[in-house]
Amino acid sequence: MTTTSDHHIIAIDEHIHTTWSYEHEPVQTVESNDIVTFDCRDATNNQLDIASTSGDVYSLADDSTGHPLTGPVAVADAQPEDVLAVDLLELQHEGIGFSYFYPGDEGWGLLPEDFHDPGLHVWELDDGIGRFVNGIEVPLAPFPGNLGVAPAVEGKHSTTPPRRVGGNLDVKHLTTGSTLYLPVEVEGALFSIGDCHAAQGDGEVCVTGIEAPMIVTARLRIISDMDIKQPQFETAGPFSVNGDRMHATTGISDDLMDATKKAIRHMITHLHDHHDLTRTEAYLLCSAIVDLKINEVVDKPNWVVSAYVPQSIFPD
Amino acid sequence: MTTTSDHHIIAIDEHIHTTWSYEHEPVQTVESNDIVTFDCRDATNNQLDIASTSGDVYSLADDSTGHPLTGPVAVADAQPEDVLAVDLLELQHEGIGFSYFYPGDEGWGLLPEDFHDPGLHVWELDDGIGRFVNGIEVPLAPFPGNLGVAPAVEGKHSTTPPRRVGGNLDVKHLTTGSTLYLPVEVEGALFSIGDCHAAQGDGEVCVTGIEAPMIVTARLRIISDMDIKQPQFETAGPFSVNGDRMHATTGISDDLMDATKKAIRHMITHLHDHHDLTRTEAYLLCSAIVDLKINEVVDKPNWVVSAYVPQSIFPD
Repeated sequence: MTTTSDHHIIAIDEHIHTTWSYEHEPVQTVESNDIVTFDCRDATNNQLDIASTSGDVYSLADDSTGHPLTGPVAVADAQPEDVLAVDLLELQHEGIGFSYFYPGDEGWGLLPEDFHDPGLHVWELDDGIGRFVNGIEVPLAPFPGNLGVAPAVEGKHSTTPPRRVGGNLDVKHLTTGSTLYLPVEVEGALFSIGDCHAAQGDGEVCVTGIEAPMIVTARLRIISDMDIKQPQFETAGPFSVNGDRMHATTGISDDLMDATKKAIRHMITHLHDHHDLTRTEAYLLCSAIVDLKINEVVDKPNWVVSAYVPQSIFPD
Repeated sequence: MTTTSDHHIIAIDEHIHTTWSYEHEPVQTVESNDIVTFDCRDATNNQLDIASTSGDVYSLADDSTGHPLTGPVAVADAQPEDVLAVDLLELQHEGIGFSYFYPGDEGWGLLPEDFHDPGLHVWELDDGIGRFVNGIEVPLAPFPGNLGVAPAVEGKHSTTPPRRVGGNLDVKHLTTGSTLYLPVEVEGALFSIGDCHAAQGDGEVCVTGIEAPMIVTARLRIISDMDIKQPQFETAGPFSVNGDRMHATTGISDDLMDATKKAIRHMITHLHDHHDLTRTEAYLLCSAIVDLKINEVVDKPNWVVSAYVPQSIFPD
């Protein structure tokens, strides 16, 4: 690690929580502008390993522990109405990651009605590349999927939905060098982080990116003269893979969610037909690398959403 | 023009239509692999010019002529179930473009309820750059907004909504060097094109890109062994502006349309607060350069859509 931290929060059970709540006692109080290193468990809380198979995904579906988040860290003097800036300085994976989805109509993900068996790929992460099947190599762009501050609302809240105060944003552009701005709602802000992804396509369509344990180093800064209603951020990408050529499928519908489903279904068929992937493999690959754009949202009554796969990930 | 065309369809009234219909007589029949140059009028059908003001937008709102499309061109031997590949070889603007939106709750665009007066910006297009207010320069990336083949459905159909056979796709990535694949539904395919944009942000949020008259040269190819349900395409971008840093606003909601509206509203506020733009100017600029991504669509019940503006468009 090249960045010098002022604090290091290790991932022992006492530093982990699986709900958002201002009732969680801070594990550390830091000053504004301090640099903090967080050891983050993967989203499964260490339940998968190199030997796991798709059958092991059933037990995850029943798991109620949520994303294990490291924290919370209190920032001295942070007040409601302030903004917490999180400068992401360094993210370091540990060589392994997991993509998976749950089965069934009541399951998670964009297309639970299309898949009735679970899917799993264990990724070997190496030299900026994650290895999939058929020689496909996905470029890594590590980021924390779940980071935020405590909401002012009483009680304990699920870590799954993102909120005004951040949380499970799953914004793939929160890579090293990016800055996230979060509206502070409680004294001390109470910042936590976890659920890191070594790579992810926009949408995180099968419900997981490349879920990976990671060490994240960030500077926490309080800003008092910024007014935002929901999180904002600055980033340099990644917006594509080295400007390479993309194949894209459109989804056209009068409903944005339906258009999104169509775009991904057409991409799964494209990957199945042209790149010799099973539909399960194609769905997992979409979630790891395929990006989603809203092309137009004004030509009523039909909107266009497109799904983009970079051609450079496939072997020649 | 550097590309040699086999055919040139000029924009006289006899070569223009403003509905989609297989009843339109082809203005030319070409062979598969022929290169065709299309003169395309702008979306307003020449109703705006360098001296236009925002008051002139009222008359456009009442205009029922739709997008003037050049064509249709029949491709010999094209049959239903074939795919028409459109290789976009060259796009040439004429130095001027228009961004505008209509007023009122019944108007068009993503946020008609927020804007009660019309907006207009006349763009001077020069050396790959469009000039906005306050020294802001938007990089040009010309593409046709509306291109497709005739649907098999009887009657005359509005050119506004995109459909299975293409039409008003407004996909900003259909730039020079891209290929669009369209499902053919009628004999001869009956391809038409128009509504060109010198630049556009994902979503085309105010309802217009930089609307510009343009000359488009494309190769039309029939493919018989490709099965697609809606349009697909290959492109190398643009996905961002030279990899430059972006400022992004999130929209978080349990509805994708509402999340999109929130992301753009937060961006308009950001541009107003930090770049000295009126809200009308900010809305017009969003439609010309701000991109939209679906960051996550699986962390129920809340989805995240983000709006991105490249920092490089602003003067130092």
